[in-house]
Amino acid sequence: MLTALAGGVGAARFLRGLVAVVPPETVTVIVNTGDDEVFHGLHVSPDLDSVTYTLAGADNPETGWGLAGETFRTVEALERYGHETWFRLGDTDLATHLHRTERLRAGASLSEVTSEIVTAWGVRSRLLPMTDDRVATRITVQNPDGATTELAMQDWFVRRQAEPPVVSVRFEGADRSEAAPGVLDALDDAETIVICPSNPVISIGPILAVPGIRDALIARRDRVVGVSPIIGGKPVRGPADRLMGPLGIEVSCVGVARAYADFCSTLVIDAADAEHVAAVEALGVRGVVADTLMRDARIAAALARETLAAVA
Amino acid sequence: MLTALAGGVGAARFLRGLVAVVPPETVTVIVNTGDDEVFHGLHVSPDLDSVTYTLAGADNPETGWGLAGETFRTVEALERYGHETWFRLGDTDLATHLHRTERLRAGASLSEVTSEIVTAWGVRSRLLPMTDDRVATRITVQNPDGATTELAMQDWFVRRQAEPPVVSVRFEGADRSEAAPGVLDALDDAETIVICPSNPVISIGPILAVPGIRDALIARRDRVVGVSPIIGGKPVRGPADRLMGPLGIEVSCVGVARAYADFCSTLVIDAADAEHVAAVEALGVRGVVADTLMRDARIAAALARETLAAVA
Repeated sequence: MLTALAGGVGAARFLRGLVAVVPPETVTVIVNTGDDEVFHGLHVSPDLDSVTYTLAGADNPETGWGLAGETFRTVEALERYGHETWFRLGDTDLATHLHRTERLRAGASLSEVTSEIVTAWGVRSRLLPMTDDRVATRITVQNPDGATTELAMQDWFVRRQAEPPVVSVRFEGADRSEAAPGVLDALDDAETIVICPSNPVISIGPILAVPGIRDALIARRDRVVGVSPIIGGKPVRGPADRLMGPLGIEVSCVGVARAYADFCSTLVIDAADAEHVAAVEALGVRGVVADTLMRDARIAAALARETLAAVA
Repeated sequence: MLTALAGGVGAARFLRGLVAVVPPETVTVIVNTGDDEVFHGLHVSPDLDSVTYTLAGADNPETGWGLAGETFRTVEALERYGHETWFRLGDTDLATHLHRTERLRAGASLSEVTSEIVTAWGVRSRLLPMTDDRVATRITVQNPDGATTELAMQDWFVRRQAEPPVVSVRFEGADRSEAAPGVLDALDDAETIVICPSNPVISIGPILAVPGIRDALIARRDRVVGVSPIIGGKPVRGPADRLMGPLGIEVSCVGVARAYADFCSTLVIDAADAEHVAAVEALGVRGVVADTLMRDARIAAALARETLAAVA
């Protein structure tokens, strides 16, 4: 049994490689929900959906988000009513949010609805939201006039294209949240725990902020392997560099190793960063070099195989 | 100033003719909301939307419901999650329901949201829901085994295609409802009040069931003119015959005249029913003959002109 901690697109691509080399039903994925947001009255869980759609083979490889062949009729029609539509919800994707919202309003937990959605897409791995409670990633940014403003994650990332300089990040509600059913057991019982190549601050960070999860990882440290999302001092995609730097985390695989060192025994880093193995290992984290740039499914599968071998 | 009582498609077509012969901003339309229903967690107001879309020139003349050029991506995608999708919500239409639902949840009244939607579509007439309260048309039908079942209106009409034989109809919540703001004033102040060619039982019936509306009509009886939705003993479209008969209302313009006689001084009937003028007038309702089959916008405008002239 294998458990993975995952954010959105990078994690989804890695997981697609993973389920090509191990039986999908042996994989449990604990997914970040700090980016969850209500748009037009609907509960949207971007990372859960990215992982689900990618594992179902229905993702859009060109945009890196949403579904292949998607249309945007409803969101375009919402403009007529003055709705802000910078978060582009596709028409097919919308069905997922309608279903989720209706079920949550009827009293189902996010775990239960996630299980329904995953099953409906024919995905055989188990997806767990990190928590059934509401945790919201909030980003404080500096305005041009020097004052600061706190923004919701999607507001900063999508609407403002990650441009406002980051001052701090918090996970609202995390301290009062509980790990979703099955999360702590999946960490306790896993043969291997993988930290997917996701943004350490706003994808993995919220998961670690749920009480009990970091301790569970620390207890299994020798079975935890991470994959660095930073290659050659830059994130493959997404705004990790805009967040790590301001929060004092070096934007490099060494910075990732330092951030994960207390709960992660092994870090897979890219061949381009081979020179940093010694610096990683100086932190007490074993450094393993691989091709981590997942240009296609074959490379993702090879990366997954090497990641598992690193802690075999 | 002119006030009209309206159901769905037939009323919408008549009103399009009406606003071609009088300034649209002089028209107030009081619309049935007994067919309102929640689908996939969204508040759908079929008659309000039919009238809005038709007055905006955006209706689909082929189907008689929904928007021209509509697509159905979201509703098709909902089938994946096991949702019943016999009520076909189009992707563009869905934006209206998302907006309405979000605003209602935020505490806006149906009147307020209706005004926003009508304005967004550039419609210059005033549309008022009959009430801001929840009134639900319920239809009791006879099962093959002789037992009876109560169905929601859309369940009987759309899902079961109006096939189960009708035993009775009630308007749940009507006795506790209040006319929406502006409704009673629009009846008191109107120069002319038109009962559009709508189903007398489930389109006009719910409006009359809202306390105060029938009395307001009775007080203005000499200014009230109806248009019969029944031509030659049959409804032009819709299930009026399946409802009127079982409820003891003759399926003819005479039956309509009898149902409306206490609040309606004049009834426009089709040329095909000219022979029934005497029977209508025997009920104390003036009978006026016109071409009431609105095959195109020109005929609808002529019908509107003759309807107004009938009580001029």
